[in-house]
Amino acid sequence: MYRTHTCGELNTKHIGQTVTLSGWVQKIRDLGAVIFVDLRDRYGITQLSFNEDNKNLQDIARRLGREFVVQATGKVIERASKNKKISTGDIEILVSELKILNAAKTPPFTIEDDTDGGEELRMKYRYLDIRRNPVKNNLIFRSKVTQLVRNYLAGEGFIDVETPYLIKSTPEGARDFVVPSRMHPGHFYALPQSPQTFKQLLMVGGIDKYMQIVKCFRDEDLRADRQPEFTQIDCEMSFVEQEDILNTFEGLTKHLLKEIHGIEIKTFPRISYEEAMRKYGNDKPDIRFGMEFGDLSIIAKGKGFNVFDQQEAILGIAVPGAAGYTRKQIDKITEWVKRPQIGAKGMVYVKYNEDGSFKSSVDKFYSQEDLTKWVEITGAQRGDLILVLSGELHTTRTQLSALRMFMAEQLGLRKPDEFAPLWVIDFPLLEWDDETQRYHAMHHPFTAPKPEDAHLLDTKPEKVRANAYDLVLNGNEIGGGSIRIHDKKMQAKMLNLLGFSNEEAQKQFGFLMDAFEYGAPPHGGIAFGLDRLVAILGGQETIRDFIAFPKNNAGRDVMIEAPDTISQEQLDELHLSIINNHN
Amino acid sequence: MYRTHTCGELNTKHIGQTVTLSGWVQKIRDLGAVIFVDLRDRYGITQLSFNEDNKNLQDIARRLGREFVVQATGKVIERASKNKKISTGDIEILVSELKILNAAKTPPFTIEDDTDGGEELRMKYRYLDIRRNPVKNNLIFRSKVTQLVRNYLAGEGFIDVETPYLIKSTPEGARDFVVPSRMHPGHFYALPQSPQTFKQLLMVGGIDKYMQIVKCFRDEDLRADRQPEFTQIDCEMSFVEQEDILNTFEGLTKHLLKEIHGIEIKTFPRISYEEAMRKYGNDKPDIRFGMEFGDLSIIAKGKGFNVFDQQEAILGIAVPGAAGYTRKQIDKITEWVKRPQIGAKGMVYVKYNEDGSFKSSVDKFYSQEDLTKWVEITGAQRGDLILVLSGELHTTRTQLSALRMFMAEQLGLRKPDEFAPLWVIDFPLLEWDDETQRYHAMHHPFTAPKPEDAHLLDTKPEKVRANAYDLVLNGNEIGGGSIRIHDKKMQAKMLNLLGFSNEEAQKQFGFLMDAFEYGAPPHGGIAFGLDRLVAILGGQETIRDFIAFPKNNAGRDVMIEAPDTISQEQLDELHLSIINNHN
Repeated sequence: MYRTHTCGELNTKHIGQTVTLSGWVQKIRDLGAVIFVDLRDRYGITQLSFNEDNKNLQDIARRLGREFVVQATGKVIERASKNKKISTGDIEILVSELKILNAAKTPPFTIEDDTDGGEELRMKYRYLDIRRNPVKNNLIFRSKVTQLVRNYLAGEGFIDVETPYLIKSTPEGARDFVVPSRMHPGHFYALPQSPQTFKQLLMVGGIDKYMQIVKCFRDEDLRADRQPEFTQIDCEMSFVEQEDILNTFEGLTKHLLKEIHGIEIKTFPRISYEEAMRKYGNDKPDIRFGMEFGDLSIIAKGKGFNVFDQQEAILGIAVPGAAGYTRKQIDKITEWVKRPQIGAKGMVYVKYNEDGSFKSSVDKFYSQEDLTKWVEITGAQRGDLILVLSGELHTTRTQLSALRMFMAEQLGLRKPDEFAPLWVIDFPLLEWDDETQRYHAMHHPFTAPKPEDAHLLDTKPEKVRANAYDLVLNGNEIGGGSIRIHDKKMQAKMLNLLGFSNEEAQKQFGFLMDAFEYGAPPHGGIAFGLDRLVAILGGQETIRDFIAFPKNNAGRDVMIEAPDTISQEQLDELHLSIINNHN
Repeated sequence: MYRTHTCGELNTKHIGQTVTLSGWVQKIRDLGAVIFVDLRDRYGITQLSFNEDNKNLQDIARRLGREFVVQATGKVIERASKNKKISTGDIEILVSELKILNAAKTPPFTIEDDTDGGEELRMKYRYLDIRRNPVKNNLIFRSKVTQLVRNYLAGEGFIDVETPYLIKSTPEGARDFVVPSRMHPGHFYALPQSPQTFKQLLMVGGIDKYMQIVKCFRDEDLRADRQPEFTQIDCEMSFVEQEDILNTFEGLTKHLLKEIHGIEIKTFPRISYEEAMRKYGNDKPDIRFGMEFGDLSIIAKGKGFNVFDQQEAILGIAVPGAAGYTRKQIDKITEWVKRPQIGAKGMVYVKYNEDGSFKSSVDKFYSQEDLTKWVEITGAQRGDLILVLSGELHTTRTQLSALRMFMAEQLGLRKPDEFAPLWVIDFPLLEWDDETQRYHAMHHPFTAPKPEDAHLLDTKPEKVRANAYDLVLNGNEIGGGSIRIHDKKMQAKMLNLLGFSNEEAQKQFGFLMDAFEYGAPPHGGIAFGLDRLVAILGGQETIRDFIAFPKNNAGRDVMIEAPDTISQEQLDELHLSIINNHN
């Protein structure tokens, strides 16, 4: 037996008991007459003490280094000077036996909450990084969240069904990772981007409530904080309308917020995609703060300010309490919106001073009366700073949305312990892509049009809305789903609209369309991005910090050095050869 | 709202209520004046009735076919003739509204517990097969088992940690499935055969109790009932000895048997690998019945029976109550052991008659007194039939083990509702492979030798035992694990023994051996094969019946038609070309 207790549980109740602990050496203080060693495990830190009564033991203790793994037996005694910061701070172990279980080289960075290790180094030695409380606690938190999710959904009658990982490549959506088949030369499996078609087949199969926490894969050019493999809470239900799904998963999200943060939210607000774009320029708005868009497009034109007169859209926000910003501060904001990542041409500001007067960058063109209208439209209060961008509608919305988030960040309005969920509904079914000159599915090709809009599919496809919905939390999309098509003809029509020929549609999705002919029930579902959900519930936004062994931005695992070459024998067995383009 | 109730919940308490149900048409009986329709969903079957008061509705009902999806509203009424076989059998719904939600083609096989569909057809239309109770109930059962496992382990302090699926190919063990990297041309990820090294790194990282239910992948030439992707309950613990692990997972298994079958087993018996091989010729013996091997090797020689005199081993079992077998029956058994799959040269039998006399196929060579000794050694009782095989020791054990199982099957001794768990311990660390002329790891290369045997590693490696253990249930290995090496030098030595050069060892497992230098704790673990565990707990042995979308014996998903070809564009992006060997 390596231990009788963990390093996190002993207190004054245990005084007098002889205990055995195992763990890592966190810190050693050699005071000569007495040596103190902080012993750490997953559960906490307990102080070991070695006094002069046992010189041999002191000699062993002096040979210890940071991160040595040791086993110590001794009596629990009361500490002379208590440490109120830790749960075991009232006691220490007067060690009578000490065994070094494994020595340790000095770690390449300190195993402390605030480490001196840089990102790359910590990734390479991820197993050491996991010893640090912030990383360890994130993993424990993730485990807790998944347990809550599973038990809640099980209580609601959901069946946890595993769908296959070796499936078939489909050209729609992102790029697939593929897996060459040795037994079928020249043929490939693909790793699922999501279990979408399988969960729909489960609905056809009568499993009317399905859930799974499942890895998904996308071979995309990675952006910061995107992982080639990621985890979804994947769910589907039969004999449901949108309302049933929203209620079920609002229930789940409420349960999580309650259990994790003790927060009770009665009903999640809902807004349409159109309203979200109009008010926030964004389909996943953070509603923890206001700054809703004011549309100045009509009233700000025709006053001689050329820049505005030529634009499609003139949109403004009222930044609370920022009227006192200096010229320098405002210049910085202007620089920020002009960065290539944002791409605004310029920015107009209006200070709505505490005394009710205005000071703007366009005083030449707009009277105090004009600006009073701006105040009304943006909802500005005295002391606020109105910021205005203009240009093509969609671009301006995107830019002003970024600016809104930037200002909120600056003003500390994005509080990590405040949670504001929001349903965004009524997404368009399709979006036109200029590059490929065809429609793309906004959600995916299996999303059903709203019945009342279906008649527009042939004439004005871009006007058709879907029963598609996103769950947004604090400005992040944490889940999204839709009511699906369950009719073969409608599915075929949809695939045609998306540019599939009948033959392609049959080859790729024939199994699904065939299934629809054998009695498919009405169904719909949702998928949550677990990595992001956990990060946001944890009050953070970097998903990598909540993944045990993440990959870097180049899709590499720098700890195990993957991907890597494979042997010629393996290539031969797979009937593959590598084309060297660098000749 | 598609339904107010499910098809499995209505009873006499609901009489008089107006309800709405949705589901599939199971059966239609048109009696002219009244039409009965059995409506089915996941939860059960409810009878709909259509009477002459509403001719229009009767017309619609007459247009229904099997597996149509319908929504019906009506009043719950008491049935004239009750059906005691189903929970809803006391009531029926007098339908007032009927809506066809989706029509259905006639399914290619009947959706009944005993279907007329063959295996291949049911695989192709798996979504219809899942509608059948036996398949549906297996999936629900699997979901229940995983929930029990997760909650039990969470209660024991285990953290559910997801390990990566895109890892690095390693030559040890079975063949890897690989995934070409587009971003790193010529490089490949591999899909994990198990999360072995990652769970060990989690131990180095201080997560002292890890669990995960995780897909694993092996590109093997498939045998019947082997799947290229399969699911493991994967666990690891730090600061533990073998005893701690056996107790923890004995606890889990007891919990499952108790919760699922109401069976309480106090302590699981344990036998050594050596004893298992000696008594049952098998390292995963079914101990629900006796028939332990008797070793006749010494006493049966030198009696003039040439066949035996030349053999290394002569082993027998006493088949209970089979002394009365006819010559024809015994000939059939002899034929069975002589099949190429078993490969015995012949079989000797001794009938130990109820009157205490013997009748054997070798009466010429053995006296009644000789045979009395056989009885003692095989533990035969009056009325038993002793069956004896001979040959090389290992081969004979394997053959007699197969015969033992065959006879048990014949005699109905393998009862699906009886559960006999068993720990097999003290496995050899290594086994010699004649073909490759080197040692292979019996468990895997990370298994630690027993400390008391470690001194034999250099001189008699084959004598070294490991702290490795299998959990056997009803003759199936349901779990296996070991105490791991946590010392870099020992791991390097082990890899050398397995034929790795230092360079190869460093390239493949350098990250793990490096990790061992930074304070690795003693650790060990276990993995359960979930597919098999669920099947056996469900009283069955075919794992495919417990997988939602299994692959066939050629590794194909015949429903979605995977694997399949991919586009030239995809190949180009991956810098791959396919070698056609058939030119």
